[in-house]
Order: sequence, then C-alpha cells, then structure tokens
Amino acid sequence: MPNRKYIYGVDIGATSVKLGFFTESEQLLEKWQLPSRTDGDSAAMFFEIVQSLQKNMAANSVRQTDIIGMGVGVPGTVDGFGAVHGSVNLGWKTVAIKDALESLCQFSVRVENDANAAALGEFWQGAAKGYDSIAMLTLGTGVGGALILDGKLQKGANGCAGEVGHICVRHDETLHCGCGACGCLEQYASATGLVRLAKQEAMSAKSTLMTPDSLSAKSVFEAAQAGDAAALAAVDCMAEMLGRALNCIAVVCDPQVFIIGGGVSAAGEFLRESICHHYRGMAFGAAGNSDIKIALLKNDAGIWGAADLFLKAGQC
Amino acid sequence: MPNRKYIYGVDIGATSVKLGFFTESEQLLEKWQLPSRTDGDSAAMFFEIVQSLQKNMAANSVRQTDIIGMGVGVPGTVDGFGAVHGSVNLGWKTVAIKDALESLCQFSVRVENDANAAALGEFWQGAAKGYDSIAMLTLGTGVGGALILDGKLQKGANGCAGEVGHICVRHDETLHCGCGACGCLEQYASATGLVRLAKQEAMSAKSTLMTPDSLSAKSVFEAAQAGDAAALAAVDCMAEMLGRALNCIAVVCDPQVFIIGGGVSAAGEFLRESICHHYRGMAFGAAGNSDIKIALLKNDAGIWGAADLFLKAGQC
Repeated sequence: MPNRKYIYGVDIGATSVKLGFFTESEQLLEKWQLPSRTDGDSAAMFFEIVQSLQKNMAANSVRQTDIIGMGVGVPGTVDGFGAVHGSVNLGWKTVAIKDALESLCQFSVRVENDANAAALGEFWQGAAKGYDSIAMLTLGTGVGGALILDGKLQKGANGCAGEVGHICVRHDETLHCGCGACGCLEQYASATGLVRLAKQEAMSAKSTLMTPDSLSAKSVFEAAQAGDAAALAAVDCMAEMLGRALNCIAVVCDPQVFIIGGGVSAAGEFLRESICHHYRGMAFGAAGNSDIKIALLKNDAGIWGAADLFLKAGQC
Repeated sequence: MPNRKYIYGVDIGATSVKLGFFTESEQLLEKWQLPSRTDGDSAAMFFEIVQSLQKNMAANSVRQTDIIGMGVGVPGTVDGFGAVHGSVNLGWKTVAIKDALESLCQFSVRVENDANAAALGEFWQGAAKGYDSIAMLTLGTGVGGALILDGKLQKGANGCAGEVGHICVRHDETLHCGCGACGCLEQYASATGLVRLAKQEAMSAKSTLMTPDSLSAKSVFEAAQAGDAAALAAVDCMAEMLGRALNCIAVVCDPQVFIIGGGVSAAGEFLRESICHHYRGMAFGAAGNSDIKIALLKNDAGIWGAADLFLKAGQC
C-alpha cells in the first residue's frame, strides 16, 4: 500500500485508551483499546501507546512515512502547544503531550480536549454530519460540551467555550456544584445528577420500581420507561433543565443542531423526546426550530474526532 | 478628489436616521441626521435618505463612481438578501431595503440589524478595538445584543444569535417578558426593567430620593450615586442579573470582552464596576478573566458599524 496515507486517532480516558487506524479518505480500518494506567505515569502511558501503534504499523506493513499524523483527545485543558494543564481524571499536572509523543513516534501529533474531540467526531462523521454549527452536550459522570460554529471549534478566550455543564438552570438551588456555584446543569443532567433526582423522587413516592441504594442512570431510565412515576418525574426534571440550557445556548449563539452525547445519552429517543418537549415549549422565537439529536458514534466519537484533527478539521 | 473612495453609513432608528460620510481609510468626514418618518412609509423614507446623500455628494464634489457603497443598520430581522422582516419600531412589515435603496442611489447597499451594526462599530472602532471576540449587550428600552467571534458577526441558524436579553436570569420570576417567557435579562437590565426594580425598592423603603411617578433609568442612577439605598438596591439587582447573563455567555462561547452599550450604559463606570463585582464573584473558572467595558461610540456606533459593512467586516 505504498501510495496510501494513514492517520491514528487516540482517545485517552481514565479507564481505557482507545485507538483507531484511519485512511486519509476517512475510513476506519481498525480500532482497539489499551487499559489506561492509573498511576499517573504519563511517560509510561505514552510509551505503551507508541509501542501499540508500532505493532499495528508492522502488522499492516505501514512505514513511518506513510503516516500523516496522530490526533489525541485528552480529558483536560489543552493549550496551543499541545500540552495539557491538569487532568483530574488521569492524575496529571502539566504534561507536554505533543512533544513527548512526537519524540517517541517521529510523526506529527495534534492534541485536543476530549469533549472537543468527541464533538469534532460527531460533526464530521456522526449525528451532526452536514451541519455547520453545533452545540454538543456530553452527559456522563459530569456534563461537558463543545461548540462548533461555521465549521470551527470554539475554544474561547479562556478555554471555557462549550462548558455548558455550568450554565445555571436553577437559581434557587442551594446545593453546590463541583465548580462551587449552585444550580449548574451538571447537577441535574449528569449520571450523578439524575440519580440524585431519582433518589429524591423515590423517597417521597408511595411506591416505586427503583431501589434507591443501587441506582444508576441506566436503571432510572429503565424504571421510567416501565412507567414508574418517581423515575418519570426525575427524567422529566432532568429534561426540563436540559431544555433551559439549550434555550440559553440558543439565545447566545443559536446553533443549527444540539447533539446529546455521553453515557447518559444511551437512553436515546426516550430522552430526546423529553428534552424536545421542554425545549420546544420554552424556546425563544425561531430558535425553537433547531434540531435536537442523540450522538451517533458513542465510544468511537473520540477517535474519529482525534483523527479528524488531521483531516477536515485541520483545513478549517 | 478623484482617487479617493467613500462610504456612507446609515443607522435607521425610530426617532432619527443617522448618516455618516466615511473615507475608505476609515475616517468619519461628516455626520448628520434626519427625523425618522413615523407613518411607516418606507419608500418615502428611502427617498429622503437618498436625497440627503445626493446633497452631501454635491457639496463634497463626490461623483457616484467615487462611492464604494452604503451600509444600513435597521431595527429588525434582516435576511441574506437585505430585506427586513418586521420592524415593530418602524411600523414595517417585509421591506426589501437593499433592492429599494440600490435602485434609487445606483451604488451597492448592504443591510444589517442595528444591534449587530452597533457591535461591528464598537468592534472595529470603539471599545472592542483590538479584540477578536466580543459579546455586546445593548441596554436600552429593551436589551439587545450581538456576538462577534474570531472577527465574524454571528447570526445563528435562526437569526437568534446574540439575543442575550432573553437569557433567563431568574427562574422564580412570575412576571412575563415581552417574548412570553419569565425571568429574561431584559426584565431587569433594560431602562424599563431598572425603573420597575427601583419602584419596587422605593415602595418598601422608609425614605428615598426617588419620586416613583417620574422615574427614568437616568434618575435611578443619579439617586444611586447620591447614596440612596433604594436606588442602590435596584442598580445592584440589575448588575447581579447582568452578571448572571455574562456568566452564561461565558460558559457558552467565552468572549474576550463584554461590551455594555445602549442608553442605560451612560451610567458608565458606576454601572461597570457593579457588573464586574457580581460577575467576578460568580464567574466559571478562567472565564472570570474576560474584560468588561462600556461602549465608546455611543450614538455613532450604528453609522460606524454600517460603514464597516463595506470596510473590514466585508473582508471577513
């Protein structure tokens, strides 16, 4: 395969490192994962990643000169030099990812925040394909997000663009979010937030299918879909708070589509319909016409987005 | 002056039409205004505008071929063809401004919403000069706004980008905003909103310098600056609601600077400090580092921004 060019897309997470091997014509040829190191030793992790890539190159008879580059997504704030400044999930302080990986693998490396990478993945290859401007909300342990306007990822003057988990959606909240404020979207629309809402509803319900001590976002959605009133109330509250956040995003930058991703979005159409119901009812003017979609690429969004740092995104 | 090229910037408002005569090197040579027609007769207004421009051209020995074009700001939603769709302030329904003016004046015309034009003016020539990304909040009878990111005016998928007057800043509000929702920024940070807040405070105050029956935003600020407790409480509430809105804008798109414009911004540093106090205290992470400035161009922002539709903005 002498004339073809390849790209690696790598998504570094707290539990696993996902890797993808792509052609320059945007085909995912192979994907695999490595367990993530939990000791915070970034140098050892980079060595393992590059070793794994070299094994893949050998197996596919790919030379180093056939590789356009490697895109990397990482949970943390990434600066313009490809260094991450503090990753709570990985136990990293400042790590010069781009420099470290380039010196090991000898081809070009680009680094992006993982939520941004996932949004780029959905934008180029997933649920937002064909749109120009998207707001992505990633509902996981917390609520992350990313904003792409006119095909360009927005980072913001202080790296805070797309931090939509910290839109205040309830000004009378007295519980504190991890950021220190009260009433952040993350307090209601993360997996943790939904479980908290469900526990509150279960406590005051006469009967419920939910067992408050062993709740997960998944089990709350299952109970809600089985018609459990307490679970339905919790999901309804979560969707209303999401509607408020979308409304706020809309009057600021009015994207064509809202993409709901992250583990909690596995609830799919059931969740989407509930968000739509609330959003359409409160949306400002014509902004209510924007689409709301569930992310398509699931766990692969990160490797697609990372690879795209060398494909379409690099051309913006 | 055979080699020089000129631009007209026109700001159509409900009480006056402001006109500016600019060189292509961004000098304002002359400005003047006409009374605005109140009968909703757009054709007659366009005729008066073009007549006034022709008089200006004759006085300056400027030929039609010396004019690069005319930019126009208008209060209403402007489509991609330079037509406005509904202007409550002017009593217009759909008016094809660009077509009508071009056929009268025989040079190129570009049309933009007036809040967007004012933001472009501040961006290129005023308080936001030198910044790449700004959010402008125009505090007048209502609260308008505009968003410029990476030097580009954002309109949004449905024309709603920058409609920051409709960010919900108080979820427990029971009074309705003109848009139908409750708790919009406009209900607290417009001139009307501030007067409402001041009346409430005056009613429950033991004594106040304010006379509730003849209040204006200006008189509320004067009383506040004189130390009147009720007026200070009203301004403080307004500034807190503005802080909430800035915080919300920041976690969505994180601009480098917030520009506070419109008639209410005449309160200047007194208002700015109060907004800063609230915003800095609640801002998310590094977003608190963004600047907050009072608009500089005042009533001229619109003509500058309109002219800039043919200058820098046209190059974006």
